[in-house]
Parts: sequence; structure tokens; C-alpha cells
Amino acid sequence: MKFRIEKDTMGAVPVPADKYWGAQTERSKNNFKIGSAASMPLEIIEGFAYLKKAAAYANCDLGVLPIEKRDAIAAVCDEILAGKWTNQFPLVIWQTGSGTQSNMNVNEVIANRAQVLKGFAIGEGEPFIKANDDVNKSQSSNDTFPTAMHIAAYKAVVETTIPGIEKLRDTLHEKAVAFHAVIKIGRTHLMDATPLTLGQEISGYVAQLNYGLKALRNTLPHLSEVALGGTAVGTGLNTPTGYDVKVAEYIAHFTGHPFRTAPNKFEALAAHDAIVESHGALKQIAVSLHKIANDIRMLASGPRSGIGEIHIPENEPGSSIMPGKVNPTQCEAVTMVCAQVMGNDVAITVSGMQGHYELNVFKPVMAANFLQSARLLGDVCVSFAVHCASGIEPNYKRIEELVNNSLMLVTALNTKIGYYKSAEIAQTAHKDGTTLKQEAVRLGYVTAEDFDAWVKPEEMVGNLKKI
Amino acid sequence: MKFRIEKDTMGAVPVPADKYWGAQTERSKNNFKIGSAASMPLEIIEGFAYLKKAAAYANCDLGVLPIEKRDAIAAVCDEILAGKWTNQFPLVIWQTGSGTQSNMNVNEVIANRAQVLKGFAIGEGEPFIKANDDVNKSQSSNDTFPTAMHIAAYKAVVETTIPGIEKLRDTLHEKAVAFHAVIKIGRTHLMDATPLTLGQEISGYVAQLNYGLKALRNTLPHLSEVALGGTAVGTGLNTPTGYDVKVAEYIAHFTGHPFRTAPNKFEALAAHDAIVESHGALKQIAVSLHKIANDIRMLASGPRSGIGEIHIPENEPGSSIMPGKVNPTQCEAVTMVCAQVMGNDVAITVSGMQGHYELNVFKPVMAANFLQSARLLGDVCVSFAVHCASGIEPNYKRIEELVNNSLMLVTALNTKIGYYKSAEIAQTAHKDGTTLKQEAVRLGYVTAEDFDAWVKPEEMVGNLKKI
Amino acid sequence: MKFRIEKDTMGAVPVPADKYWGAQTERSKNNFKIGSAASMPLEIIEGFAYLKKAAAYANCDLGVLPIEKRDAIAAVCDEILAGKWTNQFPLVIWQTGSGTQSNMNVNEVIANRAQVLKGFAIGEGEPFIKANDDVNKSQSSNDTFPTAMHIAAYKAVVETTIPGIEKLRDTLHEKAVAFHAVIKIGRTHLMDATPLTLGQEISGYVAQLNYGLKALRNTLPHLSEVALGGTAVGTGLNTPTGYDVKVAEYIAHFTGHPFRTAPNKFEALAAHDAIVESHGALKQIAVSLHKIANDIRMLASGPRSGIGEIHIPENEPGSSIMPGKVNPTQCEAVTMVCAQVMGNDVAITVSGMQGHYELNVFKPVMAANFLQSARLLGDVCVSFAVHCASGIEPNYKRIEELVNNSLMLVTALNTKIGYYKSAEIAQTAHKDGTTLKQEAVRLGYVTAEDFDAWVKPEEMVGNLKKI
Amino acid sequence: MKFRIEKDTMGAVPVPADKYWGAQTERSKNNFKIGSAASMPLEIIEGFAYLKKAAAYANCDLGVLPIEKRDAIAAVCDEILAGKWTNQFPLVIWQTGSGTQSNMNVNEVIANRAQVLKGFAIGEGEPFIKANDDVNKSQSSNDTFPTAMHIAAYKAVVETTIPGIEKLRDTLHEKAVAFHAVIKIGRTHLMDATPLTLGQEISGYVAQLNYGLKALRNTLPHLSEVALGGTAVGTGLNTPTGYDVKVAEYIAHFTGHPFRTAPNKFEALAAHDAIVESHGALKQIAVSLHKIANDIRMLASGPRSGIGEIHIPENEPGSSIMPGKVNPTQCEAVTMVCAQVMGNDVAITVSGMQGHYELNVFKPVMAANFLQSARLLGDVCVSFAVHCASGIEPNYKRIEELVNNSLMLVTALNTKIGYYKSAEIAQTAHKDGTTLKQEAVRLGYVTAEDFDAWVKPEEMVGNLKKI
Repeated sequence: MKFRIEKDTMGAVPVPADKYWGAQTERSKNNFKIGSAASMPLEIIEGFAYLKKAAAYANCDLGVLPIEKRDAIAAVCDEILAGKWTNQFPLVIWQTGSGTQSNMNVNEVIANRAQVLKGFAIGEGEPFIKANDDVNKSQSSNDTFPTAMHIAAYKAVVETTIPGIEKLRDTLHEKAVAFHAVIKIGRTHLMDATPLTLGQEISGYVAQLNYGLKALRNTLPHLSEVALGGTAVGTGLNTPTGYDVKVAEYIAHFTGHPFRTAPNKFEALAAHDAIVESHGALKQIAVSLHKIANDIRMLASGPRSGIGEIHIPENEPGSSIMPGKVNPTQCEAVTMVCAQVMGNDVAITVSGMQGHYELNVFKPVMAANFLQSARLLGDVCVSFAVHCASGIEPNYKRIEELVNNSLMLVTALNTKIGYYKSAEIAQTAHKDGTTLKQEAVRLGYVTAEDFDAWVKPEEMVGNLKKI
Repeated sequence: MKFRIEKDTMGAVPVPADKYWGAQTERSKNNFKIGSAASMPLEIIEGFAYLKKAAAYANCDLGVLPIEKRDAIAAVCDEILAGKWTNQFPLVIWQTGSGTQSNMNVNEVIANRAQVLKGFAIGEGEPFIKANDDVNKSQSSNDTFPTAMHIAAYKAVVETTIPGIEKLRDTLHEKAVAFHAVIKIGRTHLMDATPLTLGQEISGYVAQLNYGLKALRNTLPHLSEVALGGTAVGTGLNTPTGYDVKVAEYIAHFTGHPFRTAPNKFEALAAHDAIVESHGALKQIAVSLHKIANDIRMLASGPRSGIGEIHIPENEPGSSIMPGKVNPTQCEAVTMVCAQVMGNDVAITVSGMQGHYELNVFKPVMAANFLQSARLLGDVCVSFAVHCASGIEPNYKRIEELVNNSLMLVTALNTKIGYYKSAEIAQTAHKDGTTLKQEAVRLGYVTAEDFDAWVKPEEMVGNLKKI
Repeated sequence: MKFRIEKDTMGAVPVPADKYWGAQTERSKNNFKIGSAASMPLEIIEGFAYLKKAAAYANCDLGVLPIEKRDAIAAVCDEILAGKWTNQFPLVIWQTGSGTQSNMNVNEVIANRAQVLKGFAIGEGEPFIKANDDVNKSQSSNDTFPTAMHIAAYKAVVETTIPGIEKLRDTLHEKAVAFHAVIKIGRTHLMDATPLTLGQEISGYVAQLNYGLKALRNTLPHLSEVALGGTAVGTGLNTPTGYDVKVAEYIAHFTGHPFRTAPNKFEALAAHDAIVESHGALKQIAVSLHKIANDIRMLASGPRSGIGEIHIPENEPGSSIMPGKVNPTQCEAVTMVCAQVMGNDVAITVSGMQGHYELNVFKPVMAANFLQSARLLGDVCVSFAVHCASGIEPNYKRIEELVNNSLMLVTALNTKIGYYKSAEIAQTAHKDGTTLKQEAVRLGYVTAEDFDAWVKPEEMVGNLKKI
Repeated sequence: MKFRIEKDTMGAVPVPADKYWGAQTERSKNNFKIGSAASMPLEIIEGFAYLKKAAAYANCDLGVLPIEKRDAIAAVCDEILAGKWTNQFPLVIWQTGSGTQSNMNVNEVIANRAQVLKGFAIGEGEPFIKANDDVNKSQSSNDTFPTAMHIAAYKAVVETTIPGIEKLRDTLHEKAVAFHAVIKIGRTHLMDATPLTLGQEISGYVAQLNYGLKALRNTLPHLSEVALGGTAVGTGLNTPTGYDVKVAEYIAHFTGHPFRTAPNKFEALAAHDAIVESHGALKQIAVSLHKIANDIRMLASGPRSGIGEIHIPENEPGSSIMPGKVNPTQCEAVTMVCAQVMGNDVAITVSGMQGHYELNVFKPVMAANFLQSARLLGDVCVSFAVHCASGIEPNYKRIEELVNNSLMLVTALNTKIGYYKSAEIAQTAHKDGTTLKQEAVRLGYVTAEDFDAWVKPEEMVGNLKKI
């Protein structure tokens, strides 16, 4: 490999000749050989591209950056956003906790690439754009990295997570409506209970997802606030007047999302409670999805020795040894994602609690965990909706058989003959393997006619219009 | 001890003669000897008292309970709410996961106490009020326990947690205002950075708490929804028409809080995402408080070998062996509470994810963890506000010494002579143990006059009006 | 209430006249009104009683405490260990993070009680025993509290947790042996799979508990090391030579457990990794128990619409609204305890990671969470063993019906006709609702005779001797 | 792209013509578009390569696989182990929870590659080796995936994690020895306390890591047990007699690690407590590392406004805005990794607790989290040892200044004049800003000569030989 020499304030470093990055990126690459290479999420790099461009525009507007420099910086940012330079960001999550080195990676790539766009070779000639003085103007890692985090997190939530959840929610809602009158046995404590309809059961899932969406949306205002303009410690040192508001407006404009400047920059650097808050909602959604997916696989269990009340799509052979086996694999993908999100929530909690003085230095690990959760939840909801939920069908025969056989229909008698006598009927039928009606009549508590009039599953399921 | 015989649908059980509870409570006491006795939170019992009274009123209004029974039930509920019967609820958290036995405990105590209020001995005579048929009318454990949870949780948040946080927030805000112009060194990565004011630093804490309060309040609407009216599986079986709305109105009336009926009762029984959601906000607040308390103890560390920029109150001797030692004990109480809340969040997550079919059977453990977090956070904020935060005073001498000595004031030169020359000045002063000014002049980058004009801590702290 | 005046190095404090505690306890009571009163676990106080007595003996042996003082201190410690003074320890978990105030509480109670045993009233006369100089001699809160933690934790694990788990393990092992030949359908992914025996299934639970016990026992050596002798920062300042070894021997002698002095006292004060380590094993056991209890409730589900392969004891009425319902309540207590232990593990992790310099100041919260977990796990295992596991009985009829009907018996044909043809047989039988044999013969892949010879559930379950 | 048609028991699937994988891999690729592509860790694929080869050998030895097939399978496994086919395993973590599709991916690649090694094009001709009947012979996903997990996890722990921790432990031990006599101020509650030496302080870190290593090694026996031979549900259906023991011996032979067959295969499929157990130890180590790294960055804080007792290497420019700033970046990488590992522990706990009946279907997520933790911990320890710990040097001047100035040296007077008078001396000196000696003499408690004789930091640090 060929190398060129790059310098920073600590001295010279050989850098691969064909790479745009500079001394600080190379130092970081050498000093942090931890885990897989290039693990810093590309969404963060993309967030940086947006904010570097916005900063250049704001700086230019406010008279501290010439328009040619602005345009040179913006041109490279647009290339990065177009996905042209994904191989120029080799750093890992496990670097300095402010993400300084990824900020410098972006600064260096932009500066060197701008030089090339000017017609020079990489590293050749007096730099037209300087990494620290131009690309990073009016900025610090301490306000850029959290800004990149918020841009990336907000976009992931709004563009991937929410649409994914909504798709699943809509799919389940269709099923709730379609099966609104399919009366089935209810189960509490995993034990037979009074009946409800399959649509009602599924409507509970829809409600969960709607609450989750609401909770997640509640967190977006905090997440939409960006730290940029706080610079090193939140005071905005070395920024021109009005810069923070203006740069947030440019970010909003370039991303198409309603970003705005954080009203308190000290909080925005020293704490990442917005990430904690928003991931708390992701975790809540994981809790909901786990319940839903687990219910569906239990309801679909069988085919002959399980609950078997619904059918779900058979997408692939289920076993390498048991021929003909089909498994609820989409449910399993969901529940695994949920476990991951619950773990990520703790990683984010432990990180978020440990800001020290003016800075929280767990930024990269918080960003990485958040983005993984947001992406996985969105993706798995789509996968689950398309490959499983949309294909849910009732096993009518099984459902009918189970509901008619149930002892808990006796509950309808409570208001007629009281809890104690009803219990005696159910217990006797259970012990003798008989039906409720047989025992009700035999015990002399109810006539056969009254039994038929009072114990009707279809009248035990309440108002079906509410789904 | 003397016993009387109580019966339930499974048979007879001897019960201490002087206790109001009945057979099912006694069974539970014997079958669940797990952990400390009577661990079921009294706030839950109180929640039950509200809802039993509300149910009696709603049932009466709707024609399914005579007014005398209503009044008898309500009279006992009022006694319970007055704290008269705290020794009548001996059950533990670790019972049936629907809390059925605590529901029955309340039903039994109300029925037996009503009998006594009628002039009989406990257990004597034909019961005027029946535990299952009257006290529990139009109810199931499955909808009463979650309703009691929501009443208790909502009240704890609104009556204890939020006022506690607000008190601390207000105390800190006063300090932020008082010290808005006290210029001090900033620290990032625990290392010296550019200056800010003590008021700015504290304003970040205030902002954190304000975000936390907002996040917590965002969760109240979900928490204000009550399951009552869903009965066994969410269908509302055995409830009169209009009951769910009416009973929620009575709960709102009796508690003075805006409870309303849950729009989807299937969700309200099978999932407790409202608890997960609201505790997520409590956890976020724990994250914030940990940062704040940890910062304050670091800033107050010393007295001679630490940071020592602030004084905090000396409340008690700090050491049993080191005479004269004083420690940041209130900060330690805060951070310990935070650790507990973070643990409780996982207990709640693990519990919330595991509803099965029509019921989540982790209700008591969710309630207990939630109520502990809500109470501890509220209490510790008050304690911290009163015994620590209110007494924060700057150590002006130390603050001034440190800020004047700082190498990071060099940052003010970036926009004048560029990042590289500024770095050289700082590095040389650091190596030689000299001042920035000495090196700046010696290196010939800045005149003494310019240095004095450009490097002014008071001009490096931005807009002080924003606190 | 009557008060007397007690003094400490900060001045005078009025203390309830009938209480043995002194100024520092009273200060703590007033300064930390957080959560329920007296929440500091009594097991910790008991640990202190052991160590104060041991310290008195070691100090006396080494010539720094007169024998009369030793005996006076020991006499009060014995009273505390006999449970005589449980109302003299009013402090909460949420105090100073070193537990200094609980150490002083014990010192004060011992000193004042000794005075009374000498014939004086509380607080009367020149103290015979001084709290700091005598009771606390050769000690610091920093080494006593962790010693009390280890004593309490070790005792809880060895006296409650392990015996409880062993009882459950033995109960399940008996069931595994009793049902070793009861052939039933296996289930993977909740779906029908190849058969195994009920005994084999239960043997997996037994194996889990054995691994858990082994893991827990692996942590005991670390937990048996005590910090005493390190005093303030681990150097052993103000202790006589040989004290640390000797005092640990006395603790071992008095408790009957193999405690020994920690080889590195700096670690023993500044970190509580022994607590983290040992609770990690408790958490593993919670993971195992959750699996076991959840399986058992699924296997017992029904009675008519669930899996229903086993019966478990009916201990109490299961529902306040559904007459005759019986639920797997012991399983629910187990799984709730497991959720709590998983949460506690995070509280302990977050606390254990945050030692600063020479001290970890999350001692009380770590102790409280550990002791809760140890106690709950032990208790719930006994409860589950006695009230559920011991009563497990197979539902032979149901088991036989399900296994004979299973499509996954086809797996036995893999080695005869290959995976693909076997799959075709199973899929066709599934689609047509027929039996494997019918389809195998109809498709011409196997003769009826060969089918009968090859597909025998009893030959598909492997070596039954291994349970 | 060109495609060929591959078939499985569900029908035909077009597969990229240049890829070795078959129908089931392709189905999974299409059905699980969740998160980044190919996220299934390559260490798992490597584990599969070991076990497929071992199974081929064991099957051959036991007469159920011809030697030519054995050698064909082994040849491809060796290619995989040589890293030749990393692009042939495109599946994600978030697939079926048994990892069936990754097992099939390996089976398919081996079968098709063997065909090519025989001289055919991919997919051409009658297959010499069949994916299910030959490569998967005597296996199921249910026993192969956990075996691959254990192989990968054991290797990661033994080859990466433990050596990394040992390297850091050794580096710190050298520092503890080198600085064993450097007397410095101790700090408890972050406040000045009695002195100790820098070597003693660091020896506590060494002790923590040694405990962690011991705890981790304690878990290796469980992790060394492999499930292979259990097949579908643990009974060993379709395996030849003696297979399980033999195949484990081959795995041990090929990997060079002491793997052995799990004594209870039901546990080995249905639970992954070995992963929970071993990751518990990784979490403990994260707790320790967090303490160590955090201490080091606090001790190194400054350069002028922090603690500043030690110097650590300056590896890179620390700030994009503050010239000359250097930060404790390696400490930050460590603490971020610790936060991740703590999160992963919860993901593994939540996954491990949820085995259902004969199978736990959270295998891939457990494997992925475990391997990430093991790798990150090993890597970060090396990075921290090389780039930070090895360069720790005392700032002698600062250390001496702080220790001599300390008020807590007064503790040495406790045994001479008692705790109360000592406290008075310290409090007065603190209030007046004087020295202990001045106040001791002025108060008349100690003569100047006695003070000098009694208060010697070098006699307050105990036995220095114990490091």
C-alpha cells in the first residue's frame, strides 16, 4: 500500500495514499482496534454531512465563511449523502466518547475531497479548505456529534420505525375487523376463561401499538432539538451571533424534518436524555411486540398438539431433521429483536446517566444502540406484517370446538344463581368430564331451558362495535 | 390464637378470630410464604378501596345493587381510606399474578366489616354483604387489580414524584439564577475546557428536570385510563350497560384525579404498557438525577485534594474513623435511588412483556416496583433539595484561581490566529508550566495587548440572559 | 415523647428518651426521609452484631481493648443476635452510601445499651463504652459495612437460597424418575416435534437447577472474604498487627461459616464485585426458574382448551368472577420473583460499577437488592416445591392421545427413506387430516408392516436410564 | 444477475447462480430483511464448520456415512475454516430462533461446494452429498446451533477475552509494583481521606481483574459441554449409539479445546444457561473495568483544574475546537464497552429465560450478544493496556503536595487522643485554612514533637509488601 504524510497538531502520520481521511482519523484507526472495523453507523456520518453543510451555509450567511468555501464544503456533503464515500469512514464506535475522531474524520474527508474537486491530488498543494478552521468552523465535536445523533435518530424513527409499526398496526387492525365476530375461548393465567372474539383479542394488539406510537411521537420534540451552536461547553464560544438558530433552520431545510436549536445547550452536550427518552418508547414498543408475537405463536401452535386456533403462513421448511415441520419463525424474529431492544435500553441508560460536568462521553455507544433498535423494530414489523400477520386465518373448526366445550361459560350464571352455585356446577363438570348443562340441571340449579337462554357465548362477548 | 371457620368454594379454612379477612386471604397467606409478610403495597389497597366504592355507586345507579348495600360497602371503603385497617391486608406481592387474592382480601374485609357495622360479630349471622356477589359485583380481579394499580401509580406520580422533582427543579433554578455570572472553568472528558458560569452549568440540570417532568406528564393520559368494566377477559361480561364509563367517573370523583375508562379493555387487562411507559419516564428522570447528583459531589469534592468549586451543607459527621470528615451523603442517597429505579425498570420491562392471551399475570410485581420508584424519586428529590441543593454555595476563591490558570482559554484565539498556532501555544505552556500569555507572546503569535483584548473569560461564556 | 440530648462531633441532638441510639442515628433519621422507615435490612444489622463482637475479641486478644469492654460489647451483640432490639435500627437504605450511619447506629446502640447493662439509665453517667473509640475500635464504616454485607449475603445464600433450590431440585428429580417412561409429544418452537418422556423433560429442569447451584457455589469463596481490617481506605490504619486475620477467624467462629480476611483490602472497599458475582448466579437461577415455571404452567394449561398434559395442585379458587376456575398461581409467584431478581441484577450492576477511588458508595442499595433476591428465590422455591411441583401428575389419557396423533413421528423414517419423502408424507397427512401411516402407504414409500416396525414412539426417546 | 433453480420440500426457489447456498438460505434471505445483511456472526459459521466435520467423522466411524462422503464434507469445512467462503453466509441474526436457516445455509454450501469439488458446476448433476441426509446426518438445528454457539463462545473467551484481560492485569500489576511506595492521599466519597500508596490503589484494580478472570474460568466447564447428539428434542433420535460422546471428542480434537458431550441434552437444547452464566462473568468484568477506567481518568484529570495525580499517554488531539487539549480517550472506549456489555447481559437474560418446552428459540440473539461482549472486552483491554495503562506515570509533585496538605492525616491521632479531639483539630484547621499541626498544638492536645512523631503519612499506609 502507498502512503502519504498527513499532519495534525501532534505531528505527522502516514495515511493510505488513496484515502481521503487525514492524520486524526488514521491515529484513531491505529489506537482503537476494538471490535469490527468501521462500526460507527453510517447514519451518523450522514447526520454529519447534513450538519456540516448547514454549518457552512450558516457561517456564510453570517459572514464568517466565504461563499466559495461554503459551496466546496456543501458539494462534498452532497456526495457523502449520495452514498459515494461509505468507504472513507473507517472508525469504530469504541473511540473517544465525544465522537471527536469521527467528527475529524468527516472534517478531513471533506477538506481533502474539496481539494481534489479543485483539481489537486489528495494532500497536494496548500489546502483550500481546512479541516478545523473551515469545515469545523463554529463547531466542536461536543455539539456536532450530538447533533448528528439527533438527526440520525429522528430520521430513523420517523422514516423506518414509525412506518414499520404503522404497517403492522394496520395489518392487525384489518384482521381485528375481519374476525370481529369469531367467538372463541378466552384464556387468563393460560387457563380457560370466558369467551371473546378473535377480533377483540387482536384489537388489544392494535391498541398496544397505537399507545406505543403515541408514546414514541411524544418523544420527537425533544429529539428534534439540536445542540449545534453550543460548541465546546454549551456557551457557543466562537460562533457568530444568531448562528444556532440559523444552522438548525438549515438542518431542518436540508433534511425535511422540523429540527430546531436546543434551548439549553448545556443540557444538550452534558446529557443525552432525549436519546434515553426516545429509546424508552422504543423499549415500550418492544414490550408490546413481544406480547403480540408470543400470543400469535401460542395461538398458532400445533398442528395437532397445541392450541391451534389460528393458521399463520408457512414460509419455509422448519426443521433440518423433522420433515414437514413448519414453525412461527417470524414471531421468533420479533421476540429476538425485542430482547435486543430491551438490552439496548440498559446500555443507553447506563451511558446516559454518566455525563460528567459539561459533557457526556458515551455518545457513540448511545447512538449505535439507538439506531440499531430503531432500525430493527421498523424492519421486523414490516417483515412480521408481510410474512405472518397478513396471513393469519382462524381455524374455525378448532375455535368452535374449544369454545363450546368450555367450563367457564358458567360465569354467565353468576348474576342468576350466584358465584357459589355456579362454581359447584363447574367443579362437578370438571371432575366428571361432563358438560355444564348436564350438571346445572342435575344439581337442580337451572332448568335446561334457562340454561340455554342464559348461557350463550355470543351474548358473553360484549359490544362488538368497539373494535 | 382463637380461630373461626370461613368458607370458600373449595371448603373451610380456620381464620384468626380477630381478623376481618376470610378463607381466600387465609389460603393465600399459607400458600405464599415468600419474603416479608404483608409486602403488597398499601397504596394498592387504597386503590381498591376507591374502586370498590366507585363500583358500588355505579352498580347502584344502574340498578344492580340496593342503596343500603352501596352505603355499607362505601362506609368500609372510607374506613380503609382513613387508614383504619392497615393490619387487615397480610398478603404478599408474590401471590397469584393477577392479584386475585388481594382483590378477595379486600372483598372479604369489606363484607365482614360491613357485617360488624351491622351489629354482628365477625363471621356471625347471614352475611348482609357477600364478598363475591356484592362487593365484587360487575368486577373481576382482572379488571380491578389493574385499576387499583393505575389509581395508586397515578396518585404516586402526581402527589409525590412530580412535586418532589419540581421542588428540586425550583431549588436548582434559584441557584442557576443566583450564580448566573460566576465564571468558572468548564470540563469536558473530565479535562479542563473553556469557561462557563456556574449558573449555566446548573441551568443544564434544571433543563434536564424540566424535560423529565414533561416526559413524565406525557405518560399520564395512558395511566389515567382504568380497566374497570372489562371484567374477566375485557368483554365486560356481567356488567350493566354504561357501567365502565360511570365507574370511572366515580373513581375520578372520589380521587380528584381525571381517571377515565380505557377505550380498549382487552389491552388494559392483557398488557400493562401504561406502567411500562410511565416507568420509562421515571427511569429517564433517574438518569438525569444521577448526572446531577454526581456532578455536584464532584464539584464539591475536597476539601483540599479535590475539585472544590462549590460548598454543600455539612449535615452529619462523615466517618466513624476519620475525624472531621464530611461527605456528600445526599448525593449518595440520590444515586442509590437512581440505581434502584434503573433496576426496577428492567423488572417492569421483563414483567410487562409477558402477558399471555387475555391477561398479564405480573401485576403485583409491576405495581410494587412502580410504586417504589415513584415514592423514592419524589422523596429523594425533596431530601436532596432541602439538605443539599438549597445550600450550594460557590467557593469563589477556588473558582477564580482555576479559571484564570486554564490553558483552554486559548480557544478564544482560534478565530484570530487559527487552531494550529493556538494549539502550539497551549501545548508549550502545558509542557513548560507557563501561562498562555507568556507563550503566545514568546512565540510571536500575539502581542500582549491583543492577548489581553482577545482572551477574556467573561467574553467566552456567551449570553448569560438565557438561564 | 420525651427526649434526651445526645452529642456528636457536630453538636447536640435531641433523641427519643426510650431509644438506645444516639446523635448520628437521629441525624440520619431526620436527614433521609426517603421511602419506608427502617428499610435497612435487619440481616445487615445482624451482620454488624457478629462483626462488632468479633472485633471486640480480636482487639482484646491484641491488647488494645480491656476484657471488660470486650465482654460488655459482646453481651449487647448477643442480645441483638437474639432479636431483642429490632426496633432500635430505624435507618433507611437511602442514606450515606458507605452505610456509615448504620455503622454508627450499631455503635451507638451497643454503647448505650452497655451503659444500661452497667446499671445506668440511657445516656446517664460517663460512658463505659464509647461508640467511636471502643465499639468501632480498629474499624471504619468502610470496612465494617462491606463485612456486614458479606456476612448477611453469605448466610442468606447458604441458609435460605441453596436449601430452597435443593428442595425444589429434589422434588423435580423425584418426578423425573417417577415419569421416566411416560412417553409424550415433544414441542419445539411451540410446535409438535418428536417424542420424549415426561421424565426426560423434567430432567432438563433438574439439570438447570444443578448448574445453577454449581454456579452459585462457585461464587461463595469470593463472598466469604471480609474487608474488616482495611479500615478507612484499605491500608489498615489504626489496627493492631494481625488484626485482620484474627477478626475474620472470630467471625467464622461466631457465624459457623468459613469467612476469611480479604487478601486485598483496597478491592474489598472500593469494589463489591463479590456481590455482583454472586448475584450474577442468582440471576442465572432466576433465568432457569422462569423457564421451568413457565413450562409447567403451559403443560398444565386447560382444563379443556389448553395443553393439559399434566395436573398440578388446586390450591385456591382462581377467580373472583369465574366460578370453579383454578390457576397456576405458584408458577406465577415464581415468574414474578424471577422478574424481580432480573431487575435487582441491573440495580446491582449499576451500583457495582461506580466505585470511586478508595470506596464504593452504593453499599446499602447493593446489600438490600442482594438480600431480597436471595430470600425470595429461596422462599419461592420452597413454596413452588411444596404447593406445586410435588403434586405434578401426568394426564395419561391426554398425553397418549397427543403423542399417537403426532405428525412428527415421521422423523423416524428419515434414516429409512430420506428427509424428502418423509416430508411429503407429513405434509400430505397434515393437509388431508389423515394419519402418517395412511399417507406413507398410499404414497407407496413404506409398507404398513414396515411403518409399524419403524415408527414406534417408545423407540424414539433414546436411553431412559440417563435421567 | 443469473439464477439457478434450487428446491426444498416446499418447492423451487431461484438462487444467484454464483452462490453455493440453496433454497432454504434464499428463502430466509427473502423472508427476513431485518437490519444489516449477513449479521449472523462468522464465528458461528466457523463453529458449524468444526461440528459438521466432526459429525462426518463420527458418522463414518459409526458406520452410517461412507468415508468418501466424510472426506468431501471435511474438505469443504476446512475451506470454510480457512476463511475462503465468508461471502456464502448471507443470513441475519433475526431469523428463526433455532438458527435452522443458518444450519441449512451451512448444509447447502457444503453440499454444493462438494459437488463442485467433484468436478460439477454448482447445482449440476445428481448431488453426491445431500444437505439434509448427509451433511446434517445425526443432527438437528436444535443441537447443532447450540453446539456452534458453545464452540464460538468458548473460543472467543479463551482466545480473545481472557488473554486481553490478562494483558491488562499484567500491565497494571507492573504499575502497582513500580509505584508501591508512592504515598498519596486516599479518597472516599470523593472526599479527602487517609493516605495510601499509588501502588496499593492500583493493586485493587489488579485484584478485581483476578477475581473476574477466576469467575470467568469458573464458567468454562459448562460452556465446554456441547448439545450435539441430542438432535430434535434431546433424545438423540436418528443418531447411532455412542455418537454424542464421539462427536464431542472430534470437536475437541479439531478445535484443540476440551469440549465434551453435555450430560443432559434436554437442558442443552431447551435452555442456554451456560451462555447466561458465562456472560454473567463478562458482565462482572465490565463492572470492574468500568471502575478502573473511571478511576484512572479521574486521577489523570486536569491538567490544571482537576485531580492530576497521574499522567496518561497523549495519543491524539483531543478536541476539534480546543487547541492542545488531550483527553482520556482509552478510558472512554473502555467505559463505553462496559455499558454495551451490561446491556448485552440483559438481552441475554431476557432471551435465556424464555425457552419453551424442548427448545429455546433465542439462540442467534444470545450468540450475537455473547460474541460481541467477549470480543469487545478482549480488544478493549488490549487497547487500554497498550495505549493507556502502560504509560501511567505519577505526577510526583502534585501527589506530594496533596498528601501533605491533607486534613485526614488527623486520623493517626485517634488512638492517641481519641476521635472527638481529633475531629476538633481537623474541623478547626478546615475552618481556618490552617494546618493540622498548628491547630493540634494551639488547642493544646498534642505537642509539636508528638505531632511530628505520630502523624507520618509513610506510617499510615500499612504493609507495602502485600501488593
